[in-house]
Amino acid sequence: MALSGFPEWLPEGRQVELAVLDTARKVFERHGFASIETRSVEPVEQLLRKGEIDKEVYAIRRLQGDSDGDLALHFDLTVPLARYVVEHAGHLAFPFRRYQMQKVWRGERPQDGRFREFTQADIDIIGDGSLGFHHEVEMALVMAEVFAALPIPRAVISVNNRKLAEGFYLGVGASDPAAVLRVVDKIDKIGADKVIGMLQSEAGLDAQSARLCVELADIRSEDTSFVSRVRALGVSNDLLDEGVDELAAVVAAAHAANPGAVVANLRIARGLDYYTGTVYETELLGHESVGSVSSGGRYDRLASKGSRVFPGVGISLGVTRLVSVLLGRDLVRVTRPVPTAVLVAVNDEATRVDSERIAGALRARGIACEVAPQADKFGKQIRYAERRGIPYVWFPSDDGQQVKDIRSGDQMPADPITWVIPEDDRHPRVIPTTKETP
Amino acid sequence: MALSGFPEWLPEGRQVELAVLDTARKVFERHGFASIETRSVEPVEQLLRKGEIDKEVYAIRRLQGDSDGDLALHFDLTVPLARYVVEHAGHLAFPFRRYQMQKVWRGERPQDGRFREFTQADIDIIGDGSLGFHHEVEMALVMAEVFAALPIPRAVISVNNRKLAEGFYLGVGASDPAAVLRVVDKIDKIGADKVIGMLQSEAGLDAQSARLCVELADIRSEDTSFVSRVRALGVSNDLLDEGVDELAAVVAAAHAANPGAVVANLRIARGLDYYTGTVYETELLGHESVGSVSSGGRYDRLASKGSRVFPGVGISLGVTRLVSVLLGRDLVRVTRPVPTAVLVAVNDEATRVDSERIAGALRARGIACEVAPQADKFGKQIRYAERRGIPYVWFPSDDGQQVKDIRSGDQMPADPITWVIPEDDRHPRVIPTTKETP
Repeated sequence: MALSGFPEWLPEGRQVELAVLDTARKVFERHGFASIETRSVEPVEQLLRKGEIDKEVYAIRRLQGDSDGDLALHFDLTVPLARYVVEHAGHLAFPFRRYQMQKVWRGERPQDGRFREFTQADIDIIGDGSLGFHHEVEMALVMAEVFAALPIPRAVISVNNRKLAEGFYLGVGASDPAAVLRVVDKIDKIGADKVIGMLQSEAGLDAQSARLCVELADIRSEDTSFVSRVRALGVSNDLLDEGVDELAAVVAAAHAANPGAVVANLRIARGLDYYTGTVYETELLGHESVGSVSSGGRYDRLASKGSRVFPGVGISLGVTRLVSVLLGRDLVRVTRPVPTAVLVAVNDEATRVDSERIAGALRARGIACEVAPQADKFGKQIRYAERRGIPYVWFPSDDGQQVKDIRSGDQMPADPITWVIPEDDRHPRVIPTTKETP
Repeated sequence: MALSGFPEWLPEGRQVELAVLDTARKVFERHGFASIETRSVEPVEQLLRKGEIDKEVYAIRRLQGDSDGDLALHFDLTVPLARYVVEHAGHLAFPFRRYQMQKVWRGERPQDGRFREFTQADIDIIGDGSLGFHHEVEMALVMAEVFAALPIPRAVISVNNRKLAEGFYLGVGASDPAAVLRVVDKIDKIGADKVIGMLQSEAGLDAQSARLCVELADIRSEDTSFVSRVRALGVSNDLLDEGVDELAAVVAAAHAANPGAVVANLRIARGLDYYTGTVYETELLGHESVGSVSSGGRYDRLASKGSRVFPGVGISLGVTRLVSVLLGRDLVRVTRPVPTAVLVAVNDEATRVDSERIAGALRARGIACEVAPQADKFGKQIRYAERRGIPYVWFPSDDGQQVKDIRSGDQMPADPITWVIPEDDRHPRVIPTTKETP
């Protein structure tokens, strides 16, 4: 039976997921990120210390035998990365660039775009002692390249800066900027008026300061024009200045490299408490309600070993959420659900080995084949290919082999050593659903 | 800190694992297996009913909030596949061919080649009502193709047949053939004499029958010559005959297609109790002590839906075990630990954008690049490339760009639009360790 929050795809859906993973991997590797995986479990106290306290963690225990200690499934890939870097620092070259594609688990209430088990594809760069600011630009541009390479609606990466927000809150007189951040983070859910009220009742701001915080959260620009709008609010603070400068640098560089893919959006906050600089969130245009499909940020204090610190920056692609939107809203389709391009028919069970030999010759040329499971009448073998979505059926015969495109019905003589498969049929492809088609 | 039984690889080791996974995927897809993944958890009672009772299962529970019911992490990929097939039968075309590469968890005592979290790569074919016997040959040949494509010691797939063993045990008068099988399975651990004793004390056989069972377990052949040796033991039983015929068919077909890759080995049993016909186990020559690196078999009764049954056959590649042998015994090495082929140097921070542009041009041609993290002196940037194992450093300059092979020291003028990277340097490669090299 299905378990709510633990999604599973049919083979067609898995093809879409594989296309997303393959595309991300190709882009990540072209940018010099090396693959790693971390174990799925961490000590419970490690997870609870580093993560947001309301992330619900799944603990594991053996049904028999002695205890493994208190272990739990990881809820993201950043906290395990920090532990991995500290543990293996002596064997890594810094800045360490890695990508990581794994499942994570969170015991949250399942809802649209929110799962208990899901796959993330992360890139991070971790420095030893220091880490150049330019990597905060790089993260957004690499992820924008992944989105541009996928057959999906346009993705816009929103960028903000924790220093900007925190400096602004300090500048208006907040004594607990984190409390202000938590309230402002609710603005999309509860609206500006309620946030202004809560900023006064829960974060101790006066009415004018509360209003300024909400006005700040309304600022958004594709270029650096956000700077003058922040200045116009008349708040001054050194940390605010630093944050404005950093955000302007990210947006300016991204705007020059890929206009419109990365925007300044002073509303975004990111709940996780380990970010210290740039933060990212990503909306799919027309599908904003599912939430961010790619998020991350700069974290300066997640990993340390004695006095040695490892500042980092990372961004994560929410693979399961993205795929669930693509499938659930019928935005893409696969050209076929199986890798098989050719079904080699079987004349009778005694000559199955001949069909196997033909299939072997095609496979040696990179053409995915299977041999018909039963020596039925050819009509039935063709229907089997149709049911599986296999485009070609190959007929072995002593007096000349033939291949049939079962979509068009075209049939012609063919030799497994020389037959050329149309490039579009070589592998299954994921393509946007044409809305015009009924 | 490291957790025993939860292995993690450094980036070099992960390259080896990726090479194994990529090779397996390519072979599986060429044979028409479609990828699926199943959720990592199943209801506890489902796992305990279908699996071997001494497999230790990890249950999960949320630290906060209400219960999810009794869920546990899967201990293999076959039991979840059976559940997936029953659940989604209406959307699948049968025989259903799938591959699945995922982590599984077992709370066993960690030891050489035995882990608590590990990755398996499985192929299975599931029929609706019936499933052709020829797929039992196919499984072994596909997996042999994976092994042949990997830079590893020679792998030999041993095949036996549950009907042969069970029929033989019935033929010598055993009342509980499963009990005999369990005892004979210990022969490598405790020796033939103790097994003969236990077959009498625990499985109720007489001395002569016990001896025959041990003699059967000694039979092994690369071709069908095992048949006459079984016959020479003088035991007759219909189920035995059926098993002998099936095993002979598998070995004969495999011998014709790929001599030596698949052998009849009447000792292997496979502990898991769901197999009903052909069973597989695989040894790496010279590394037999780590156990089987690929196992599986035919199962006729794992999945059913009312009166509808789904017989299957599958074989699993023990990816983590294989990789742990390759790394732990220093059998392979990677040509470099990072995907990066070229480090583009940076003259000064003001012209970083020019270096980024060169990197972009190389990436567009499929060449993995990174830009130097700091505008240090060129000597320091070259040492950074050396430390990361990047073979080429690219020097941007207005009056002619240059690329340097930092292994040979050769440097020459180059243009990012036309420069040709030697094919061996394009991607990291996994190659056998040359034992001659000191």
